[in-house]
Amino acid sequence: MPRKPKKLDLESLTPLKQAVLAANKLLVQYNLVTLTWGNVSGIDRKQNLVVIKPSGVEYAEMTADDMVVLTLDGNVVDSKLNPSSDTQTHLELYKNFPNIGGVVHTHSRWATVFSQMGKPIEPLGTTHADYFSEKIPCTRNMTANEVAENYELNTGKLIVDTFKHKNPDYLPAVLVKHHAPFVWGVNPQKAVENALVLEEVAQMAYFTGLAGKGQQIMPQYLLDKHFFRKHGDNAYYGQK
Amino acid sequence: MPRKPKKLDLESLTPLKQAVLAANKLLVQYNLVTLTWGNVSGIDRKQNLVVIKPSGVEYAEMTADDMVVLTLDGNVVDSKLNPSSDTQTHLELYKNFPNIGGVVHTHSRWATVFSQMGKPIEPLGTTHADYFSEKIPCTRNMTANEVAENYELNTGKLIVDTFKHKNPDYLPAVLVKHHAPFVWGVNPQKAVENALVLEEVAQMAYFTGLAGKGQQIMPQYLLDKHFFRKHGDNAYYGQK
Amino acid sequence: MPRKPKKLDLESLTPLKQAVLAANKLLVQYNLVTLTWGNVSGIDRKQNLVVIKPSGVEYAEMTADDMVVLTLDGNVVDSKLNPSSDTQTHLELYKNFPNIGGVVHTHSRWATVFSQMGKPIEPLGTTHADYFSEKIPCTRNMTANEVAENYELNTGKLIVDTFKHKNPDYLPAVLVKHHAPFVWGVNPQKAVENALVLEEVAQMAYFTGLAGKGQQIMPQYLLDKHFFRKHGDNAYYGQK
Amino acid sequence: MPRKPKKLDLESLTPLKQAVLAANKLLVQYNLVTLTWGNVSGIDRKQNLVVIKPSGVEYAEMTADDMVVLTLDGNVVDSKLNPSSDTQTHLELYKNFPNIGGVVHTHSRWATVFSQMGKPIEPLGTTHADYFSEKIPCTRNMTANEVAENYELNTGKLIVDTFKHKNPDYLPAVLVKHHAPFVWGVNPQKAVENALVLEEVAQMAYFTGLAGKGQQIMPQYLLDKHFFRKHGDNAYYGQK
Repeated sequence: MPRKPKKLDLESLTPLKQAVLAANKLLVQYNLVTLTWGNVSGIDRKQNLVVIKPSGVEYAEMTADDMVVLTLDGNVVDSKLNPSSDTQTHLELYKNFPNIGGVVHTHSRWATVFSQMGKPIEPLGTTHADYFSEKIPCTRNMTANEVAENYELNTGKLIVDTFKHKNPDYLPAVLVKHHAPFVWGVNPQKAVENALVLEEVAQMAYFTGLAGKGQQIMPQYLLDKHFFRKHGDNAYYGQK
Repeated sequence: MPRKPKKLDLESLTPLKQAVLAANKLLVQYNLVTLTWGNVSGIDRKQNLVVIKPSGVEYAEMTADDMVVLTLDGNVVDSKLNPSSDTQTHLELYKNFPNIGGVVHTHSRWATVFSQMGKPIEPLGTTHADYFSEKIPCTRNMTANEVAENYELNTGKLIVDTFKHKNPDYLPAVLVKHHAPFVWGVNPQKAVENALVLEEVAQMAYFTGLAGKGQQIMPQYLLDKHFFRKHGDNAYYGQK
Repeated sequence: MPRKPKKLDLESLTPLKQAVLAANKLLVQYNLVTLTWGNVSGIDRKQNLVVIKPSGVEYAEMTADDMVVLTLDGNVVDSKLNPSSDTQTHLELYKNFPNIGGVVHTHSRWATVFSQMGKPIEPLGTTHADYFSEKIPCTRNMTANEVAENYELNTGKLIVDTFKHKNPDYLPAVLVKHHAPFVWGVNPQKAVENALVLEEVAQMAYFTGLAGKGQQIMPQYLLDKHFFRKHGDNAYYGQK
Repeated sequence: MPRKPKKLDLESLTPLKQAVLAANKLLVQYNLVTLTWGNVSGIDRKQNLVVIKPSGVEYAEMTADDMVVLTLDGNVVDSKLNPSSDTQTHLELYKNFPNIGGVVHTHSRWATVFSQMGKPIEPLGTTHADYFSEKIPCTRNMTANEVAENYELNTGKLIVDTFKHKNPDYLPAVLVKHHAPFVWGVNPQKAVENALVLEEVAQMAYFTGLAGKGQQIMPQYLLDKHFFRKHGDNAYYGQK
């Protein structure tokens, strides 16, 4: 349950607003979005305030001040602009995945193709294993009722339900059926990096599966090796 | 039926000429055209004058003054250059779709692949639903007579006939069989944006269908939800 | 049969050298080549002198003076650099196709895929018809003898043989089996433009055929209409 | 067996460090890597010292001084940064392939798709033959033990074993199953050029095989002709 901060310190949010702006612009640089599609948010866990892209604004024109600040309940506390229409989905993820610091939604091409096929992305190689600890799941179809009543909130609930037995810290992405991916990370930039890797992994998995009739999932020990070479206490990739 | 304006106010067309020029150049920026292919037009509904790209001119060299002005009957009223060879198709669309303000023709890759296959683009996900209210139709083949006698006008007539029971305001694109797409919108820029989205939707639909044997069309209620989240009286995407 | 010019006027070749240089650099701009692959030549029909890219030189560093001048017999008349290793193929085309002014060889991706499949590119839409009057043929395999003895010359002879009953002025491209395309045009720049269109047409044909089981060739009357809208005495595309 | 140099002359390594830096940045320019993925190394055969990219550092920020210097035994002799986590694989290749001067590892898209399929890249055209003397092999799966105990070293040993009956000077690439390619060359830049060509050859082979049911391997004499037109004593491509 979100707790309302007694007194909001909005000035302290400036760095987060800048990080959310930069992460949104990274979507354009990484070719993950078309026109004004896509949105990135970040959270200040001390105050339980979420900063998110405004709806339908051009990426080239957005400033840090255009970012919309909301409570976890969805009350806008600082903005003249409407927040992203997918805001309720972001909030639901922040409420249920306590370690994440950034959320991204795109319609990036190959991840969306898997969403449209209604198929998970199986782990077929170490590129997948470097970032995702298991197959990337695809949700079931939403019901007509779920769509009619609070569609965006129900999208979030469906994602959370899909992760009932999964670890969102080790598996930072989901495919929403007939829709597109939601991706997250420890902060907005890492969430966008995960979205970029998801797109590359999706494209490679698509074509591996298309030609590779009888496609083979990689051995579990190789998957674990690569994931834990980069993640967890015994990781040895990168600099200290 | 087009009405000839009593006295033409050509000076008032300057903003429209600039908008048509800008929309044509957007085709290049969005990678929707090769060489001098493609053309965008716009209409001044008060005077029933259409402004269109000249035929076979390099995009980099075109100026607003090069745009050709014609009546809806196809009489050039202000230009030394030939209008696009597809002009008659544009005019037929303006005559029959009274709310549109811009028309685009490209041979963009994936939409053209569907034209060459002679297949419609089925609604497979919310990316489609955000812009197109139903499947994007493909015309039948033109007959030898239709091709021989006034080919470009007959292309327009065939499109209009294909839309006999469809709403062009909610479905702003068509695939002409063995040819390529025509796309429209409330103004030239929106028409080009629709052409960009069509291309992305076409590519994703192509690969969803290729791998997804037994491809599933999205639920109608999800299609409607996304379309009307962005369009019509109850839309809540974007800013006021 | 090539005639040796009595006295060579090499200074008059400067504009052709510049045109051949520019056309070679266009290959890079149009993404038709990798590293130093590909080559463009042009011909001065008055002197029967051919100007061609040197072998294995970086595109970024080439100057007009690096272009190699040869007689139609293959004698280098003005250069310190080796001509393209494919020179004999170019010369054979100039000798047999009297109206062409430029020749291009690339390993552009999708045309090369058709060469590797050993399949012609069928006319599936008007994009093809705007530039090529019929299907783009693929040669048979070269024999071991043809490869062992004067390979590049025999490549040219095989192309000419493939065009025994075809009009090279209306069909400016061929696929050499297990190799890649050769393309030509009225001058070096037009040859490169044809190579660019070939690549786009090849990609669209590939995917039309891949998904479109029972792919349909376009009606002959539509093919003719589009080709002769742009070519021949009754063309009406472009400016006068 | 590596010999330890008696006294290391680290200053003489400056040109190699610069070449390794430049080759790493070429990976970005050639679109062969995402984020901080990929790594290039080079070797000084006189001192048996290897220079390699540090682990997990941004390409844009890397300097020549960041390059890590190691002995062939893997002892870092000059760096504050960790070497690439794939260093042991590079070292194993240098120890066993005595003529190579540079090694590259990427997860480039189409080569990785073949790794994920566990399939070699067959020679289907002259683009392949210009750089690779035969099919590019894919290793077997590594065993759980090989992965658990010194994974990166065992990756190198598996590659060397795969080349027991192959000539690494004429076949400068391998696909590691469920992982990605390793590529080499006479120096770091040539290794990256081979990685670029591998990627192009992989993509063309993929689509040739996908559509070309009953895909045909090219004639051996054509393969040899193209390879030896560019390589070995009788090569005649390029300048002297």
